[in-house]
Amino acid sequence: MIQKYTFGTPFETEAVVALLPAASDDLAFGRISTDDGFFFSYALGPDDKVYGLGEANRGIDKRGYLYVSYCADDPIHTEDKHSFYGAHNFIIISSMPDASKPDASPNAFGLFFDYPGAVTFDIGYSHRDLLTVSCDKLDLHLYVITGEGPYDIARQFRRIIGKSYIPPKFAFGYGQSRWGYATPDDFRKVADEHRRHDIPLDMIYMDIEYMDHYKDFTVDPQNFPDFSAFVAEMKQRGLRLIPIIDAGVKAEPGYRVYEEGVEKGYFCKREDGTKFEACVWPGTTHFPDFLNPKARKWFGEQYKVLLDAGIEGFWNDMNEPAIFFSAEGEAEIRTWMEKILQGELSFHSFDFSDHAKALANKPEDYCRFYHDLGGGRRVRHDQVHNLYGFNMSRAAGEAFARLAPGKGILMFSRASYIGMHRYSGLWTGDNMSWWSHILLNLKMLPSLNMCGFLYIGADLGGFGCDATEDLLLRWLALGVFTPLMRNHSAAGTREQEFYQFDHPEDFRHVIQVRYRLIPYLYSEYLKAARNDDLMFKPLAFVYPQDRIACNIEDQLILGNEAMIAPIYTQNAIGRPVYLPEEMMLVKFLPDGTLYQEILPAGHHFVEVALNEVPLFIRKNKKLPLVDAADRVAALDMKTMTYIGYPEAPYELVEE
Amino acid sequence: MIQKYTFGTPFETEAVVALLPAASDDLAFGRISTDDGFFFSYALGPDDKVYGLGEANRGIDKRGYLYVSYCADDPIHTEDKHSFYGAHNFIIISSMPDASKPDASPNAFGLFFDYPGAVTFDIGYSHRDLLTVSCDKLDLHLYVITGEGPYDIARQFRRIIGKSYIPPKFAFGYGQSRWGYATPDDFRKVADEHRRHDIPLDMIYMDIEYMDHYKDFTVDPQNFPDFSAFVAEMKQRGLRLIPIIDAGVKAEPGYRVYEEGVEKGYFCKREDGTKFEACVWPGTTHFPDFLNPKARKWFGEQYKVLLDAGIEGFWNDMNEPAIFFSAEGEAEIRTWMEKILQGELSFHSFDFSDHAKALANKPEDYCRFYHDLGGGRRVRHDQVHNLYGFNMSRAAGEAFARLAPGKGILMFSRASYIGMHRYSGLWTGDNMSWWSHILLNLKMLPSLNMCGFLYIGADLGGFGCDATEDLLLRWLALGVFTPLMRNHSAAGTREQEFYQFDHPEDFRHVIQVRYRLIPYLYSEYLKAARNDDLMFKPLAFVYPQDRIACNIEDQLILGNEAMIAPIYTQNAIGRPVYLPEEMMLVKFLPDGTLYQEILPAGHHFVEVALNEVPLFIRKNKKLPLVDAADRVAALDMKTMTYIGYPEAPYELVEE
Repeated sequence: MIQKYTFGTPFETEAVVALLPAASDDLAFGRISTDDGFFFSYALGPDDKVYGLGEANRGIDKRGYLYVSYCADDPIHTEDKHSFYGAHNFIIISSMPDASKPDASPNAFGLFFDYPGAVTFDIGYSHRDLLTVSCDKLDLHLYVITGEGPYDIARQFRRIIGKSYIPPKFAFGYGQSRWGYATPDDFRKVADEHRRHDIPLDMIYMDIEYMDHYKDFTVDPQNFPDFSAFVAEMKQRGLRLIPIIDAGVKAEPGYRVYEEGVEKGYFCKREDGTKFEACVWPGTTHFPDFLNPKARKWFGEQYKVLLDAGIEGFWNDMNEPAIFFSAEGEAEIRTWMEKILQGELSFHSFDFSDHAKALANKPEDYCRFYHDLGGGRRVRHDQVHNLYGFNMSRAAGEAFARLAPGKGILMFSRASYIGMHRYSGLWTGDNMSWWSHILLNLKMLPSLNMCGFLYIGADLGGFGCDATEDLLLRWLALGVFTPLMRNHSAAGTREQEFYQFDHPEDFRHVIQVRYRLIPYLYSEYLKAARNDDLMFKPLAFVYPQDRIACNIEDQLILGNEAMIAPIYTQNAIGRPVYLPEEMMLVKFLPDGTLYQEILPAGHHFVEVALNEVPLFIRKNKKLPLVDAADRVAALDMKTMTYIGYPEAPYELVEE
Repeated sequence: MIQKYTFGTPFETEAVVALLPAASDDLAFGRISTDDGFFFSYALGPDDKVYGLGEANRGIDKRGYLYVSYCADDPIHTEDKHSFYGAHNFIIISSMPDASKPDASPNAFGLFFDYPGAVTFDIGYSHRDLLTVSCDKLDLHLYVITGEGPYDIARQFRRIIGKSYIPPKFAFGYGQSRWGYATPDDFRKVADEHRRHDIPLDMIYMDIEYMDHYKDFTVDPQNFPDFSAFVAEMKQRGLRLIPIIDAGVKAEPGYRVYEEGVEKGYFCKREDGTKFEACVWPGTTHFPDFLNPKARKWFGEQYKVLLDAGIEGFWNDMNEPAIFFSAEGEAEIRTWMEKILQGELSFHSFDFSDHAKALANKPEDYCRFYHDLGGGRRVRHDQVHNLYGFNMSRAAGEAFARLAPGKGILMFSRASYIGMHRYSGLWTGDNMSWWSHILLNLKMLPSLNMCGFLYIGADLGGFGCDATEDLLLRWLALGVFTPLMRNHSAAGTREQEFYQFDHPEDFRHVIQVRYRLIPYLYSEYLKAARNDDLMFKPLAFVYPQDRIACNIEDQLILGNEAMIAPIYTQNAIGRPVYLPEEMMLVKFLPDGTLYQEILPAGHHFVEVALNEVPLFIRKNKKLPLVDAADRVAALDMKTMTYIGYPEAPYELVEE
């Protein structure tokens, strides 16, 4: 059951699409105080778990930390960070199973705080036994969901927020990316090397260097005098180019998108109606007003120039929006510098680094521009900050439906709010070549699924810092199961294309495993999307009566048939794995054969070599495998076999 | 067997105290190139492990990353960092056990690169199968050690570097610290609150705020008009105050230590003999020339003023040496600022943060000052950088032997080189309130022991960032076993004294467990120190034939009787534990009783509540326990009982 409570006059985020009547009952869980903004509190039981929050830090169980939903361009995802790129205000509070009632579902309820500004979740951080959720203004919808345990509650929530985005099948292929590819030869080299090493590849991503001075919807005229021809050349080779689109539009006289936006008033403005500019990649930039329906439509139509050139996929970036610095920020720094130079202030390195840190994504800057909602209504950006990335991707998604009806266009975004899942996937932004980020990648998967996001993935191998061959191999052995499978890295870091390492054959093997699994992965994706289900589930959702399973945070149920337990520790020869029931351990061996062994329920230590991919098949289940191919379109469904329990049924769902 | 190879004219670091003849044989392992500095390479076998490097990042097995020995004041210990505070150039390369020869020791050899400048260890980072070690100048001693496996090699190395420092027994008590305690009442509050909650406590640490304007060997005259009386007041309560001493001496006319140092020429100078100043905590600072024997003696004698006040322990900090910025660094920034303000350069936040980052601990600054070795010999600091912290603590240690002969003085340092272990312990510097730093803490313990450092510990609960009650409890359940057991945190972070949290009784229990174990811990410490042994051993050293044990990185053998397997994951109800042989699981329960269970060899999942402390006792071993007391001196050895296998012998070693 879902109860909708409305406080004040909420901004309608359009996260929820179901029409729900206002709740008539009092709130059944927790207490609400409205003395100073909105403040919800709930006393957590000693063993209660808290799921949700989508793209957030730490565990699948979010208990024990403080999270702030406020889309943040912060690339350093250490354990202490409170905000990542997404804002997903859905949580589920679930008690542990009651040993005395083995057939009862755990007590659980879900909460969705539909509020587009900052929301603070103190989940047993200040006090281990206390959950509090608060925001500054008393203007929100609160949805309270009760049901048969946390899994049921997650699916009920999914049903009210609308169907998840379904990408074209090629999007399940492997994609290679790096910030720095600029010339046609850079892209050809990636294509050539993958073919030379016989490594499957479907997509090459174009990071910001493909553009003409970082201007959206342009290409560098020197490098790409005939972009359509280059797109066609790559397509001819079975490869799709996937360009990045940044939220900010370069302020440059003569640049069509900029001129049009200014002329039509489609950029965010200051309170007094004058322009708001900030520095991002292109230099001085204007932010399209994605919350203005007309501006959204206009921006979406800009994608046409690239669609017309043959492009079939995009990634929307910098749409928190990220701000390197504003004119005010720069002015403050200049004043500070003047005072230093004139001897009014003494110099200290600490002040210097504090000033440096404070320049980007300044809260004050988010208070300096407004959205025009039509009819004379305006809203200050900070109050609807979390909707910006969502509505950028919505702009594109709505345009694709008009411009390329029925054609599948790949799209994923960095910033997001619940609701965007109907239009787009997401990637989890700038991670690092850290082993701990393999595990963070894994833990986000079910949490994102709970919030509607199904087409998801991390930068495999890590975006920042220097990857090693073993790190990349182990990470890929998780990445083979994520819908978005992309190797992406930052300029200035160690090159991490497969052919940069000593054993490209190991990478060929792992990527071939991916392609062998695509029919299964796509089928399970379609089922999850069509049935408002999760593709990645915590073990707690499937084995709610199993106390150990409920506390496992480094294994996931994949689809309905499989369990994954990747290795995320350097130099490990294997790892402990808990089986809530008998399962078949499958290892994809580098010679192309399979190791298969039935293991009984219980605790195991499973050895897995660096170049093997482990997978567990649940008891009395099976899943399809096909022969690998060099691209998704070349997969031959006639080669399909099954692994697992032979007598089991499997329903293959195709487009 | 130990072979000593000498290249060029090494700087004599005094790390090794044994007199060893020059090796007559050719190098038995690896290849050395001397074309451009020193370059050692060795082809690693697929399963070879590399131990050592003391206080370094990542695993007990160092394979798969790049490490640079260059004492670094960098508080952000993420996985990508190459240098921490210490420089410990000892490694052991060990093959895995040969399954066909179950009684043979694994092939292994050790290497100590005795070179006081930067040394780069590429341990399977560039290529997984290649180890390289290099430094700029061809002036070093290389010690090559062969023996019966890695454990034997570690002990052989320990024998040539001299006996490890033994602290007074009170140093095994619990210590409370926080950067920010400044007034007598701040310290009294810590004492009062521990007594009020009946939590044992032996030491309260004095971070930099106790000083008069951060001047070494002073106390704030306002706060401590009669410091001796305050020290005595605390001593009366059973508590010792442990002040910090920073390496840099404030440049302030009239400040005795500064005036004397200048007069005698005991500070490091520029090449032309003029003063070298840099900004650290006190502002403009001079660095004592710890490599000059006369200056070392002089600096050591400065501790007398605090010893005379009744102080019995010190921690030496900022002795890499840390430099916030130099005059040259400031001048560069000012020039850059001028260019910005005059419009010669355009402003960008990236340049700003790059400049901010580059100010501290600039390599160029380490080339700007020299050490006077006597007899007209001078050496530029960067070439002997790694000896600075070592010789600061040596200065103190040598002085204590003169000033307080026979009296145990507690001392530990931040920066270090092998050799310092004879004079001092170390703490592992500015960590964070991150769960991953519990595991990093654990992994450093055996590596530091291999390099001679026995009195060691991390900032429990984490120095930077905000600790939670559960993090601190889990971390303490490791910290109860480390010789240095100190809760320390940075100003500006969440206060993490036990009484700041909801359940001080849980902390009382854990600290009482520590005190119950002190006779055992001190006994095992003394054995390790006297016998050149390790107090913390990787499982691989004790069970070299057990392939799984050899790959366990999150359990350690403690002393000769125990194994520890702490929990380092938030919200975990327990963890997988591998037992190479039958062991007794002991859980110290919060009601003061013990849970004891014999577990067979193999893989287990062990449940451990947040307020329990788990310990494993090896088969046919036992260890002593006493009743807890409120301080070490109050422990009553007559209350001693044993836990473990009752028939086992145990040799208790006391001072």
